[in-house]
Amino acid sequence: MVPFTKEEQKKAAAVMAAGELRDGMVIGLGTGTTVYYLIQEIARLVSEGLVIHALPTSEKTRLLASQFRIPLLSADTAPAADLAIDGVDGVDSSFWSVKGGGGALFREKMIASNARRVIWILDESKLCCRLSDVLLPVEVVPFGFRYVMKEVRALGFQPRLRANGNIPFLTDNGNYILDLSGDPSMDYREKTAQLKSLTGVVETGLFPDFCEKIIVGGPDVVRVAENNKRGHLMI
Amino acid sequence: MVPFTKEEQKKAAAVMAAGELRDGMVIGLGTGTTVYYLIQEIARLVSEGLVIHALPTSEKTRLLASQFRIPLLSADTAPAADLAIDGVDGVDSSFWSVKGGGGALFREKMIASNARRVIWILDESKLCCRLSDVLLPVEVVPFGFRYVMKEVRALGFQPRLRANGNIPFLTDNGNYILDLSGDPSMDYREKTAQLKSLTGVVETGLFPDFCEKIIVGGPDVVRVAENNKRGHLMI
Repeated sequence: MVPFTKEEQKKAAAVMAAGELRDGMVIGLGTGTTVYYLIQEIARLVSEGLVIHALPTSEKTRLLASQFRIPLLSADTAPAADLAIDGVDGVDSSFWSVKGGGGALFREKMIASNARRVIWILDESKLCCRLSDVLLPVEVVPFGFRYVMKEVRALGFQPRLRANGNIPFLTDNGNYILDLSGDPSMDYREKTAQLKSLTGVVETGLFPDFCEKIIVGGPDVVRVAENNKRGHLMI
Repeated sequence: MVPFTKEEQKKAAAVMAAGELRDGMVIGLGTGTTVYYLIQEIARLVSEGLVIHALPTSEKTRLLASQFRIPLLSADTAPAADLAIDGVDGVDSSFWSVKGGGGALFREKMIASNARRVIWILDESKLCCRLSDVLLPVEVVPFGFRYVMKEVRALGFQPRLRANGNIPFLTDNGNYILDLSGDPSMDYREKTAQLKSLTGVVETGLFPDFCEKIIVGGPDVVRVAENNKRGHLMI
């Protein structure tokens, strides 16, 4: 059999996650290339009669979902999501993850950390031994961000302002993103609390192990790993 | 002698603080009614030949200082301030203070916490026994702020969205302000770290004891209290 491509892996994980949707649910809709397939699948289910409302985690997802005619809610008035589904940049064996490569980490964290249930969907390349294998995005207020870079360096990270040429990337909240690289010996769990405590840091892309499971598209099969909170990914 | 009015107390404190300015300094310029007198006095000194540059902590202060022809810097390019001077909403006997009644707490904290030296200027009404005597302003991202209010209540505070009628007040960073009331038994030092750790909280108005002194205008005299770091205001 021809192995699934990375895109097919993403799609297979997304389609399986969509199988969790039930009538009446409020769905936290993530952001990114894997979620794109989820939106497509939800649109199909909605066209067949599924009744759900979605709470998008970015303007990009809001636009996409609206083009696909998925009923939308605003976080200003919506209740917490019954189920949040989102992609990740990387997830480790303790179900901790790094997110924010797409720049939507703040809203993703706000929606997911308030959701009743959380599922991450990913292709196999996102499974990583150490969270330090991927860049850690941190959302910062533009005013004074150079002072923040200094503090971030003092914590042992190398920060880089996300930009397109000379134009800094702006989040949906009007903030900047610093992409941090660290060394493998760092304990990201400890460091992220220190990062968040800094004046200027709005939120970090480190997500604790609050997902109930991850759905991983692989080259030949989709695997589901339940988070048993005992600290190890059972795949 | 007729006692000084509150406005005269503010002015007297501001004028004394301006006596600390020296040629070549970068001055962190606070925000609020007491700083208004400081800006007037700095303008007078500049017109007499003093050479300083100011780093304003709000758009309001930037505009005022510019009208008074005080040379300005931007935080994007400026070095840290040599001396930051600002007002407070309340300061306790350990030199911890609450700021942000004017809504500029984020930039005030960014400038002051990076400054080499910090001086608070105030009238006597701002001396308080407990920081819980004044409202604690907290800057929050608009997206999902209702979830944040729930978390803030769980920490024991009563939050109120700062608004003019139905229109939320917006900070210079485009965020909202929640004004929190707590009860006198609360340890604000501990609570503020918990507040800052919440997803959605950008910064709190609690300022640690990093000021080197406070200058207090009273009904008959201006008093200077040096922060000896031994925990008690010596007035």
